[in-house]
Amino acid sequence: MEIRTDLAIENRELYKEKRKEEVPGVKVELEEGDDYTVTRVNILDPMGANNMGKPMGLYITIEVPKLKNSDQELRDNISKLLAKEIKGMGYNHKQTKTLIVGLGNWNVTPDALGPKVVDRVMVTRQFFIAYNKDEDETVANVSALSPGVMGLTGIETGEIIKGIVEKTKPDLIIAIDALASRKMERVSTTIQITDTGISPGSGVGNERIGLNKDYLGVPVLAIGVPTVVDAATMINDTMEMIISSMKDKAAVGGEFYSLLEDISKEEKYQLIKEVLEPYMPNVVVTPKEIDLIIDDLSIIIANGLNMALHHGIHLEDVNRYLR
Amino acid sequence: MEIRTDLAIENRELYKEKRKEEVPGVKVELEEGDDYTVTRVNILDPMGANNMGKPMGLYITIEVPKLKNSDQELRDNISKLLAKEIKGMGYNHKQTKTLIVGLGNWNVTPDALGPKVVDRVMVTRQFFIAYNKDEDETVANVSALSPGVMGLTGIETGEIIKGIVEKTKPDLIIAIDALASRKMERVSTTIQITDTGISPGSGVGNERIGLNKDYLGVPVLAIGVPTVVDAATMINDTMEMIISSMKDKAAVGGEFYSLLEDISKEEKYQLIKEVLEPYMPNVVVTPKEIDLIIDDLSIIIANGLNMALHHGIHLEDVNRYLR
Amino acid sequence: MEIRTDLAIENRELYKEKRKEEVPGVKVELEEGDDYTVTRVNILDPMGANNMGKPMGLYITIEVPKLKNSDQELRDNISKLLAKEIKGMGYNHKQTKTLIVGLGNWNVTPDALGPKVVDRVMVTRQFFIAYNKDEDETVANVSALSPGVMGLTGIETGEIIKGIVEKTKPDLIIAIDALASRKMERVSTTIQITDTGISPGSGVGNERIGLNKDYLGVPVLAIGVPTVVDAATMINDTMEMIISSMKDKAAVGGEFYSLLEDISKEEKYQLIKEVLEPYMPNVVVTPKEIDLIIDDLSIIIANGLNMALHHGIHLEDVNRYLR
Amino acid sequence: MEIRTDLAIENRELYKEKRKEEVPGVKVELEEGDDYTVTRVNILDPMGANNMGKPMGLYITIEVPKLKNSDQELRDNISKLLAKEIKGMGYNHKQTKTLIVGLGNWNVTPDALGPKVVDRVMVTRQFFIAYNKDEDETVANVSALSPGVMGLTGIETGEIIKGIVEKTKPDLIIAIDALASRKMERVSTTIQITDTGISPGSGVGNERIGLNKDYLGVPVLAIGVPTVVDAATMINDTMEMIISSMKDKAAVGGEFYSLLEDISKEEKYQLIKEVLEPYMPNVVVTPKEIDLIIDDLSIIIANGLNMALHHGIHLEDVNRYLR
Repeated sequence: MEIRTDLAIENRELYKEKRKEEVPGVKVELEEGDDYTVTRVNILDPMGANNMGKPMGLYITIEVPKLKNSDQELRDNISKLLAKEIKGMGYNHKQTKTLIVGLGNWNVTPDALGPKVVDRVMVTRQFFIAYNKDEDETVANVSALSPGVMGLTGIETGEIIKGIVEKTKPDLIIAIDALASRKMERVSTTIQITDTGISPGSGVGNERIGLNKDYLGVPVLAIGVPTVVDAATMINDTMEMIISSMKDKAAVGGEFYSLLEDISKEEKYQLIKEVLEPYMPNVVVTPKEIDLIIDDLSIIIANGLNMALHHGIHLEDVNRYLR
Repeated sequence: MEIRTDLAIENRELYKEKRKEEVPGVKVELEEGDDYTVTRVNILDPMGANNMGKPMGLYITIEVPKLKNSDQELRDNISKLLAKEIKGMGYNHKQTKTLIVGLGNWNVTPDALGPKVVDRVMVTRQFFIAYNKDEDETVANVSALSPGVMGLTGIETGEIIKGIVEKTKPDLIIAIDALASRKMERVSTTIQITDTGISPGSGVGNERIGLNKDYLGVPVLAIGVPTVVDAATMINDTMEMIISSMKDKAAVGGEFYSLLEDISKEEKYQLIKEVLEPYMPNVVVTPKEIDLIIDDLSIIIANGLNMALHHGIHLEDVNRYLR
Repeated sequence: MEIRTDLAIENRELYKEKRKEEVPGVKVELEEGDDYTVTRVNILDPMGANNMGKPMGLYITIEVPKLKNSDQELRDNISKLLAKEIKGMGYNHKQTKTLIVGLGNWNVTPDALGPKVVDRVMVTRQFFIAYNKDEDETVANVSALSPGVMGLTGIETGEIIKGIVEKTKPDLIIAIDALASRKMERVSTTIQITDTGISPGSGVGNERIGLNKDYLGVPVLAIGVPTVVDAATMINDTMEMIISSMKDKAAVGGEFYSLLEDISKEEKYQLIKEVLEPYMPNVVVTPKEIDLIIDDLSIIIANGLNMALHHGIHLEDVNRYLR
Repeated sequence: MEIRTDLAIENRELYKEKRKEEVPGVKVELEEGDDYTVTRVNILDPMGANNMGKPMGLYITIEVPKLKNSDQELRDNISKLLAKEIKGMGYNHKQTKTLIVGLGNWNVTPDALGPKVVDRVMVTRQFFIAYNKDEDETVANVSALSPGVMGLTGIETGEIIKGIVEKTKPDLIIAIDALASRKMERVSTTIQITDTGISPGSGVGNERIGLNKDYLGVPVLAIGVPTVVDAATMINDTMEMIISSMKDKAAVGGEFYSLLEDISKEEKYQLIKEVLEPYMPNVVVTPKEIDLIIDDLSIIIANGLNMALHHGIHLEDVNRYLR
């Protein structure tokens, strides 16, 4: 059964739903704030990686249920929290040269998060070159690029990035990408940060090269926000909720639903796929106002990055660097 | 049970699914082409209107299953077919002054069809005024405007249009709008043309004024293309398909499913709504590449309008007037 | 000699250059700030109007030479100053219903200022209607619309606005427009506010209807920023500067240049026009980065309007209402 | 005297204006069509290169005075002519792998030509990889990318392209760029194709690396269209025209103007620069409707490229590959 998700916390959720236990090989830490929850999922060993279907490493998830209709204050707080979590991972320092990569297709709204963040981060590498400097009190050496997708360029994203890395020799790569969640409630309210980069084949396209330390030779942080739910996944999950809700309500007929639940477990997702597939290979479920949501999210993340990377940049300043 | 659809052929479909008979008070005509089907649904009397949940009048639907990946030839053919159907309705002649209205929110991709068509139609009223003419051999008197939505302007769309109609006195209004279908397969493959205008409350927003002859004083043609499916509607329909498919396959357990089918009929949609509502008041299901689809559709429709309204404009010419 | 300018301070400058005296019938007040100058030109009587070539009324000009490369603090200060000047004109109060009109063509970057401001102002009229209120402690009743230009709609801008005014009955109209200056240094560094509205034929297009109290029946404030210099105007002015500079430097040949200066006064502009006209009916001089400048200016003005109109909205809040 | 131009035909024009002879070391060929002129300037040796201020190689210029208001037929003809000239240069064959590079800043309208062409060319390299093919009857192996400018990415354009060339090993690079002309009449009516690539420091930015065979190791064709005139250049040229026009008209005072002409030759451009510089380091002269012109030009060039590179693609087909 192929539930499509890019979020480590959902892989964990799926494991726990099925096995009714914490995932072996995985350490989980929770931190509750007023308006947010931070979950740090650490996949410790190959068994953990196997259970989770994801590479070993740290996956930090910031969930902010009210983010969609938030005021400026909450958004600023989430930018600060994001900056704190990025710095806390320990990959960037004053002299770190960072390359920010905006993944995804700018012509497809729910996929345009990465390019929009790149449009809004503060880029400084050209000044370090012009003034022949290695370090600065206020700003760090940052370059940024949106490579497009294979359908637009004919070139694998990984090849483009690898070529640029060899020429410009950054110490750290931060890749921004739009993700898929299994649950609508996480869409545009959740930010995942991981130090495992982006695995081959995890995206929607037919890219075969991963963006990770193995391939690129430097650490790769990946920051992602779910912007869509796969339609088949959503229908499956909603049916489960409905059947479970019907079972609870049905005092008498309870056994029907139990039976249905069991039978369907095996066949249901397959059936959904069969029913949907002919006419919707690429159908996604997304909030109607996704255009505006992507704009807002890209500002929150760009602000977070500007504060995380440039030690002299504080919240009062970040709006100056935004377009 | 509230299936959300703006297509007359789907109201008819729903009636027929339930009552297993043609809708009384409605006349239906079918025309099959190589790559398309034209269905002309004529709601003849108040009983028909009541059965359909739609005002009396003509609803022409062009279905083109292959439209999404079509080549230029098919698109041109559909533009021509659209022009023929519009002309066939008998509302526009050489001297008709037409106001084209692009409804919807240009900031929300699946809602931006109307404004994009308006960007691409050939507007001529200013020349008739400048040269003080009433008629021309080649082109007709056409003006065009996208009024925005109430959330952007603070003004009901109907008020804006009514004010402009009183000042510019057109003989005919053609309103372009994005619609909702109950079925993914109809999204961006179906064009509906109706002479009943747009009813109050039929759109998604909180507009209360209809755009129709009653309110505006001149005939209103509405041209629409479904660009989204309401998420609850889609889940409901998919569940029906699945249950029906399971019933067929289950030689033995057939009665279970019959029972489930009956029970669910009453409760299912309500349950889906309950389950989904907390976090998705505005969730839609849409093709991932909707941005490109809306662009293509707006060209097809603008070409159709240019040919339908301007008697001297033929297919060879239409691309000249496009941006 | 037809110097093209939309700025009252430039009409005054031209008069003074020629007659070497203050314009009769005009009262001028200057206020110097740290980073800005406010000039209040009050055309008091018909003689003043005739001398200035502009209707009687108040023209407030805010000049901010450093605006183009300004930091956030200066921008915020200019928004506050703009709000103060608008409020100081005395046209809007708590219960005033305001219609903001964004003039200009959104497809032509230097002309898109008005539409971009409209995209960013806080629109509230729909809530007053929904809750059936006349007044609110925090916000005022504001609607907003960009009518496009005649070339896009086929309809005179004035007709569209008049129709909407008759339907929605605002007490005050604020029109935002891009202007032409005679001097490059004023482009995108100057804001003019006037209570005379917009005169017929003052814009670039062929609109014949003015947007003013006479035509619309309610007071019309016009806020404008020069975004272009007409090419012929610019060449003419630069030649004057050069000839004058050559005259000063030429100890001996001084009389040549005096002669040239005199002769050219009569013929020069005509010659420039003749030379340029064949191939540049619509050529403008504009900063290369005009796209970004228009974005920045629209935020400054939208912030100013939000603070001027909504009594409970302060600088801390304005960014929440921006897109 | 620094006249800014990127067109070889203007370098030649300037040389001839001054020396009244054809440029030594340069061979020039003219071809007149109904609506266009093709000029082939071949810089044959180092002396020619020195006289022209440009590297040795072939510069083909297509001038189409009526292009700005052209109908579809003329545009199609220019696309075909462009395709013919590109093929005639002999750099691409059936098996040639081509990388198309769209230079310039997509946020600055007159600089966005390259990126817009890249959006519209037919990209195929991904299919050659997916099907593991070296050659195809209909299409050639084409990839395409817009690297942005140093101010956006922090990375020199040349470094990005070099990195990608090393990874993807194309046989030919075609770079598209917006140019500066000295004459308004050439803006958006002229296409230059050269096999010398793009020289370091020829653009407006501070890029130091050239995009040419020397640096990239494969032949580089550059296709450019002037979209702006430098303001100082334009004023200078207009003054020359005016003085010359005054001289002709002045029967008596002729000697004045001759004198003025001589004196000014030495000082004029310097004076213009002095007068303009304080407030306009980046001022350009451009048609008001440049947004629409860039759109049109990008289609003409993309169509030309699609026909030049893909042997099975003809005019009937090209619109299918356009967005």
